[in-house]
Amino acid sequence: MNTNAVRALWAGGERAINGWLSIGNSFSAEIMAAQGFDCLTVDLQHGVVDYATAIQMFQAMGASGVMPMARISHLSPSEVTRVLDGGAMGLICPMINTRADAEALVSYARYAPNGIRSFGPTRAAIALGPGYDGNAEDELICFAMVETAEAMNNLDAICSTPGLDGIYVGPSDLTLALTGRRYRVGFDREEPEMVEAIKRILTTAHKHGIKGGLHTGSAAYASRAIDWGFDLVTAATDVRLLAENAKQTLQTVRGLK
Amino acid sequence: MNTNAVRALWAGGERAINGWLSIGNSFSAEIMAAQGFDCLTVDLQHGVVDYATAIQMFQAMGASGVMPMARISHLSPSEVTRVLDGGAMGLICPMINTRADAEALVSYARYAPNGIRSFGPTRAAIALGPGYDGNAEDELICFAMVETAEAMNNLDAICSTPGLDGIYVGPSDLTLALTGRRYRVGFDREEPEMVEAIKRILTTAHKHGIKGGLHTGSAAYASRAIDWGFDLVTAATDVRLLAENAKQTLQTVRGLK
Amino acid sequence: MNTNAVRALWAGGERAINGWLSIGNSFSAEIMAAQGFDCLTVDLQHGVVDYATAIQMFQAMGASGVMPMARISHLSPSEVTRVLDGGAMGLICPMINTRADAEALVSYARYAPNGIRSFGPTRAAIALGPGYDGNAEDELICFAMVETAEAMNNLDAICSTPGLDGIYVGPSDLTLALTGRRYRVGFDREEPEMVEAIKRILTTAHKHGIKGGLHTGSAAYASRAIDWGFDLVTAATDVRLLAENAKQTLQTVRGLK
Amino acid sequence: MNTNAVRALWAGGERAINGWLSIGNSFSAEIMAAQGFDCLTVDLQHGVVDYATAIQMFQAMGASGVMPMARISHLSPSEVTRVLDGGAMGLICPMINTRADAEALVSYARYAPNGIRSFGPTRAAIALGPGYDGNAEDELICFAMVETAEAMNNLDAICSTPGLDGIYVGPSDLTLALTGRRYRVGFDREEPEMVEAIKRILTTAHKHGIKGGLHTGSAAYASRAIDWGFDLVTAATDVRLLAENAKQTLQTVRGLK
Amino acid sequence: MNTNAVRALWAGGERAINGWLSIGNSFSAEIMAAQGFDCLTVDLQHGVVDYATAIQMFQAMGASGVMPMARISHLSPSEVTRVLDGGAMGLICPMINTRADAEALVSYARYAPNGIRSFGPTRAAIALGPGYDGNAEDELICFAMVETAEAMNNLDAICSTPGLDGIYVGPSDLTLALTGRRYRVGFDREEPEMVEAIKRILTTAHKHGIKGGLHTGSAAYASRAIDWGFDLVTAATDVRLLAENAKQTLQTVRGLK
Amino acid sequence: MNTNAVRALWAGGERAINGWLSIGNSFSAEIMAAQGFDCLTVDLQHGVVDYATAIQMFQAMGASGVMPMARISHLSPSEVTRVLDGGAMGLICPMINTRADAEALVSYARYAPNGIRSFGPTRAAIALGPGYDGNAEDELICFAMVETAEAMNNLDAICSTPGLDGIYVGPSDLTLALTGRRYRVGFDREEPEMVEAIKRILTTAHKHGIKGGLHTGSAAYASRAIDWGFDLVTAATDVRLLAENAKQTLQTVRGLK
Repeated sequence: MNTNAVRALWAGGERAINGWLSIGNSFSAEIMAAQGFDCLTVDLQHGVVDYATAIQMFQAMGASGVMPMARISHLSPSEVTRVLDGGAMGLICPMINTRADAEALVSYARYAPNGIRSFGPTRAAIALGPGYDGNAEDELICFAMVETAEAMNNLDAICSTPGLDGIYVGPSDLTLALTGRRYRVGFDREEPEMVEAIKRILTTAHKHGIKGGLHTGSAAYASRAIDWGFDLVTAATDVRLLAENAKQTLQTVRGLK
Repeated sequence: MNTNAVRALWAGGERAINGWLSIGNSFSAEIMAAQGFDCLTVDLQHGVVDYATAIQMFQAMGASGVMPMARISHLSPSEVTRVLDGGAMGLICPMINTRADAEALVSYARYAPNGIRSFGPTRAAIALGPGYDGNAEDELICFAMVETAEAMNNLDAICSTPGLDGIYVGPSDLTLALTGRRYRVGFDREEPEMVEAIKRILTTAHKHGIKGGLHTGSAAYASRAIDWGFDLVTAATDVRLLAENAKQTLQTVRGLK
Repeated sequence: MNTNAVRALWAGGERAINGWLSIGNSFSAEIMAAQGFDCLTVDLQHGVVDYATAIQMFQAMGASGVMPMARISHLSPSEVTRVLDGGAMGLICPMINTRADAEALVSYARYAPNGIRSFGPTRAAIALGPGYDGNAEDELICFAMVETAEAMNNLDAICSTPGLDGIYVGPSDLTLALTGRRYRVGFDREEPEMVEAIKRILTTAHKHGIKGGLHTGSAAYASRAIDWGFDLVTAATDVRLLAENAKQTLQTVRGLK
Repeated sequence: MNTNAVRALWAGGERAINGWLSIGNSFSAEIMAAQGFDCLTVDLQHGVVDYATAIQMFQAMGASGVMPMARISHLSPSEVTRVLDGGAMGLICPMINTRADAEALVSYARYAPNGIRSFGPTRAAIALGPGYDGNAEDELICFAMVETAEAMNNLDAICSTPGLDGIYVGPSDLTLALTGRRYRVGFDREEPEMVEAIKRILTTAHKHGIKGGLHTGSAAYASRAIDWGFDLVTAATDVRLLAENAKQTLQTVRGLK
Repeated sequence: MNTNAVRALWAGGERAINGWLSIGNSFSAEIMAAQGFDCLTVDLQHGVVDYATAIQMFQAMGASGVMPMARISHLSPSEVTRVLDGGAMGLICPMINTRADAEALVSYARYAPNGIRSFGPTRAAIALGPGYDGNAEDELICFAMVETAEAMNNLDAICSTPGLDGIYVGPSDLTLALTGRRYRVGFDREEPEMVEAIKRILTTAHKHGIKGGLHTGSAAYASRAIDWGFDLVTAATDVRLLAENAKQTLQTVRGLK
Repeated sequence: MNTNAVRALWAGGERAINGWLSIGNSFSAEIMAAQGFDCLTVDLQHGVVDYATAIQMFQAMGASGVMPMARISHLSPSEVTRVLDGGAMGLICPMINTRADAEALVSYARYAPNGIRSFGPTRAAIALGPGYDGNAEDELICFAMVETAEAMNNLDAICSTPGLDGIYVGPSDLTLALTGRRYRVGFDREEPEMVEAIKRILTTAHKHGIKGGLHTGSAAYASRAIDWGFDLVTAATDVRLLAENAKQTLQTVRGLK
C-alpha cells in the first residue's frame, strides 16, 4: 500500500500545506495537484461536489503524488467508508462535539476489531496498491473538526481519543459558535478571543500527541499558523483562487485604462 | 443577497404557484423555468436527481428569476446544508412528525446562535449575491411536511415552532398514513376525511402565523387549493407533464385515424 | 439480431408514429418510451444531447420495444458509425442535397462490399442481440433529409439511390430554403406552395419505392400527414410537450383565479 | 407491475445466480446483463457508484430481464426509498445487527400501514409497469446482511422478522468481526469456524422460512454455496472479472514469449 | 430575443473584456461570470470541454448577464449550428485561411437566404427569449481567427467578407506559423515582427469596418492591446488564473517560512 | 515533458502490449491500467466513449505509468488536436487510404513548420509535465490504420510518409474490404490470404523503418503476432474481458450443478 506522504512529512518534522477543492471537477483538481501542495482535500460538506466526482478528482490527482483527503459532510459510517474505499488517505469530519463522536469517527475508519469499517476498498485496493487490507488505517489520517462551544468544553476528551490523528479547525463556524454574530463570518480571525481559542485547540492537541490543522484564507495567515505550530494548514481554495485572480486581473485591465 | 420572490408575493397578499422537478436535468429545469412558475422545487427525495445535478438545475433556473427550492430526502443537517450552500432559497423537508423534528429542521437551516448550520455557502455566496452571510435565513423559506398520523397529533406543536415558515402537505403519504389502503394512492383527494385533514393542516398553520403549501396533480385541484387559502400550490410535475401530453398526443393522432 | 419494429409495421401496411428527443437525459427518454410511440429519435443536430447521453437514452428505451433512431448532425462517416455502433436502428441525416450525398450516406451505413462502414458494433452487438454482423443493414433504416432548393432539384436522383430507405422532411428548413423569410419559420406549413412541396417529396419517394417521413408540431398536422400517405410522422417533441403542458397548466390555474 | 424473476425462480425450486456491479457505468452494467445472470446488484456501499448512475445502470439492464437489485450503503429510510423509487426490485442492507434494525429495514421498504416508505415511485412506476402502488412490496425482495458478532447473537430474532425475505452473508466483514485479523480478509472462507458460521446463518434463515444469500469470489465457491443450499449466490463482480481476465491475458502473452 | 451586450458596448465606443473557459464545469464558469467580464468564451478547441458541458456552462452564466461565446474546434457547419442552438451569442472559429473559409463561416451562422444554418434553436429559443427566429444573426457575433501565413496573405479578402463581425488573433499559432520555432511559443509577443503582424491584422480589420480581438496572457498585455485599439481582449483564462494563484500562494507560504 | 514508455520499449528491442478501452469510464480504465499493459488505447471510433470521458480515463491512468493512446473516429485535424491536447501520447487514426491521407494525419499531429496542429496543449502541458511545447511530437506516436483495398494498393506510399510512426492493422475491416463477406467478420484471421495480407503490411512497414501494430482478440493470437514481429499488439479489450469472464463464470457455476 502507498505510504502517506503527509505522515512522512510529519515524521521528518515538517508541516503539510493543504489545498481545498470545492469545484467538483477532475481537471481543476489535476491543475491544483500540479502546483505543489502536499495534500488536497475534496470538500463533500460545503463544496459543489458529489461522490462520483470526488473519485474522479482523486484519480486525476493520482499521478502527482499529492496526498488525497476528503472532508465528509457529517459523522456517518457509510460516508467514511465510501471516501476511504474511493481512495482518500486522509479524512476530515466536521462537528465532532464529544468524546463519543470522536470515538465513533475513529471506529468508522478502522476495521474490526479496532473499529467497524466495512471491508470493501474497491478503488483503494487498486489505486493505493497491493496490501490495502485490514491494516490500512496505519497509513490513513483522521482529523476531527472542533467548531462548537460544546466541543471546546470537551477538548481534552476529544483530543485524547485513541486513534484520532488530529484536530482540524474551521474558524468560521468556531467564531459563530463562540461569539454569535458579534464579528464578521469568515477565516483568518484577528480577534484576540478567537486567536486564543484557535491556539488553545492546537496546544491541547499537541498535549495529547496529535496534530493540529487550520483552515485559512490567505498565504499570510497560513504562514502565521505555521509559526504557531500548526502541522497542517489549508492555504488556498480553488473557488477563491479563481475568483480573486480573475477579479484582480479585471481591475488591473480596467484600472490601466 | 437576492431577495426571495415568494416572500415578496406573500407580502403582497399573493400565493405562489410551484412546479416540481423530478427529472434530473438542467435543460428540462430551464424549460420549466421559462414557463412562468413562481418557484420550482427539485425533488431529492423521490426524483431521479442527485446533488450535483440539482445544482446544475439551480444554475439553469438562475436567469429566469424563478425562486429555487429543494425537497430533501430526509431530516438531515448535512443535506439541509448542502442544498442551501448550493443555492436553494426554499426548503421542503419530509416526515416532520414532532416538535423536536421541526425544531431540528429549523436549526439546520440557521447559523449560530439561531441554529447549527455550518458556514460555507460556496455557490450561494456567488449565485445569490454578496451579503449571503450569517443572516441568510431571513430570505430563505423552510417548509415541514406533515404526512403521518403522529404528525397530525402534533400539529399545533409543529406549527408553532419558531422559525418554521410553513407546512407542506403531501396527500399521497398523508392518505396512506391516515386511511391505510382504503383508498387509491395519489394526489387530489376527494374523500371528505382527507379533504378535512388537508384543510385542518392549513387552518392550523394559519392560526400559528405560518404558510400552507399543497402538492396537487392538476390545474383544477391546484385552483381549489388556492380557493381554500393555500399560500403555495404545486400545480405540475415535469414527469407527468411530459407523459400526459405525449400520451394525449398519441391518442389524438391514433384516434383521428 | 433484433428485428426492426418499424419495418414490421410498414410490412403490415401500417405507418409509424415517432417521438422526438431533444432533452439529453435517459429518464425523459424512458418516460417518452413508455407512452406508446413506435419509434423515438434522439436529435444530435439541434438537441441538447451529446453522444454519450444518446447511448444512455437508447439504453433507457431498450425495455420498451420502441425502435431507437438518431438524427445525426451532418453527413459524416464517423457520426453514422458511432450512432449505429451505439445501437440506433434508424438514422436520419440532414442536408442531403445531391445523389452523391445520398450515396455517401448509404455507404456510411453499410459494411463492405456494400459500403464503407467500419466494423465495430460495440454496444449494438450486445444490445441488439447476437447476429449483428456484416448484414446488419437489412434491419437498419436510413432516411435522408431533403430541405434545400438544390435537393428539390435533385429529388428523383436522391430518391432512386439504391439502399436509401426514405426521405424525411424538415419543414422549417425547407420553408426557409424555398421561400426565404416570406413566411414565419416553423413546422405545420399551411402555405399552398409549401404543402405542395411536401407532398411532391412524398410522391417522389413513393414513386421510387421508398418511404416518406414528416416532422410535425401537432397531433392534428401529424394526422393530416398520415392521410397524405406519410409512412412515418413525428408527432411530438419532448421540449415542446413539456413547455406547452406547463404553460397551459399555469394559464389554467391563474385563469381560474 | 413486473413480476420478480427471482421470486419466480425460488417458487420453482431454483436458486438465483447474482452478479455484482461496482463500476458505476451503464454500459458495463448492460454487458453484464447480457451474460445470463438471474439478478445484478449495484453496490452503493463499496462500489464506485452514485445514485444517478445506479439509475442509469438499472435502465441499461431493463431490456435483459435480469432482476435489478441494490446494496445500499447503510440502514437509512431515504436510501431505501430512493433505490426502490429508482426501480430496484431487490434490496440488500448491510450491518443489520438487531431485531430492531431488521424491523426498521422492512418498514422502510413498505408503505403504510405495513411500514413507513414514502410514496413516490417516480421511475419505478414507469419502468416496472402500471400497478406499482401500495402493494409493491409483494414483488420486492429485502435482504439483511448479518456480518457482526452482535448480529450472530441476534440471529434468530433477525431471521424471524416479519416481512424480511432473506439474509445475505458478506464473508469479509463477518470474518473480521468474528475472528479479528487472525485470517486474511476476503471471500471464500475455508476456515472451519467461518464455514460453520456461514452455514449456521443459512440454517437459521431456512428455519424461519426465509432465504439465504452468499457473496463469493469464484465459480467454485459459488457452486459449493449452492450445494449447501444457498438460495442466491453472488458468483462474480465486474471489477474482479475485468482485472483477473486482463492480468491472465497479459501473463499468457508474456509467458508465451 | 436578448440583445448582445458586447454589440451594445461597441455601439457605445467601449471595448469588451473577455474571459476564457478551458475547464469544463458549470460552477467554475459561474464563478468566472460573477467577476465582471463582459463576455466569456467556452473553448471547444483546446479546452477540456465537450458540447453538453458547454451548454451547462452557458446555463450557469445566464443569470450574470455576461455575453456567452464559444470557440469551436474547426470550421464545421454542424458545430456552428450546435453552439448557436445551445445559446452562444458569439462565435470564434479557428483557422480561417481564405475568403472561401470566411464566407463559409458566415453562411453557417445565418439562416437562408443569407446562409445555410439549419433552423432548430432548441435551447437558444428558450434561453435567449422569444423572437429567436430567422433574424437571430442580427444579435450574434462571428469572429474568424487569422493564424497562418496563408491567412495573412488573404487578409483583405477575409476582412471584407460580408457578414463577418471581426478577426480574433491567436498569437501562439500565428507566431509558429510566421516564424517557425524561432521564438518560444505562447501569448504576449514582444518580437517586433509579431507585434507588427498583430497590429496589421487589427488595422486591416478596422479598414474593412469590422472588429479586432486579441488573446492575451496578462492584464498588462491586455491593457496594451486596448491601447492599440483592439475591440475585444481576452485577459484571463480559468486554467491559468487557478494555477498561477495557487503556485504564488504556495511560494508565499513556503517563502515566508 | 514525460518520455514515451513505448518508444523506450522499442528502443530497447521490446514490443508493447496494448489494452483496448471501449467502456467510457475512468474506473474501468484505472483497473485496466493496474494490470500491467504497456499502453492503453481509448477507442473514440467504436467505443462507447466521448471526449470528456476519454480525458477522465487518461487522468485515471496517469498514476500507473501506462502510455495513454487514443483511436480517433476519423481523419480530422480538430479531433487529433483534441486528444493530444487532452494528454494522449499515442494516436491511431482509422481509414488511411492514400499517401495524402497519411501526410495529412502527420501534419495534424505536428506544430508548424512541420505540420498544422494548433497550439494549446491545455491538459497535456499540465499532465505531461513542463516542456510540452513546439517539439512535443518527438515523444508522441502516430499510427495509421490500413484497412481497405485502396490502402493496400498504396502501402509503400503510406509507409514511407515522413513522420509516420507505424501502421496499425484492424483485421475486421481489412477482411471485409479484401474478401467481402466470404468469411466471418472479426479478429484473429486464419485464412491464408488474410494472414498473408497482415504480414505484408508488417513487412512493408518495417522496410520503411516504421512499426507495425495488430489488433487481436486472444492471448494466443497476440503471441503469434509478436512472433511475426509486430511491435505493438492489442491483446485485450475491456468489453470482451468482462463479458467472456462473466459468461465463463456462469457456465462454470451452472455446469457444476
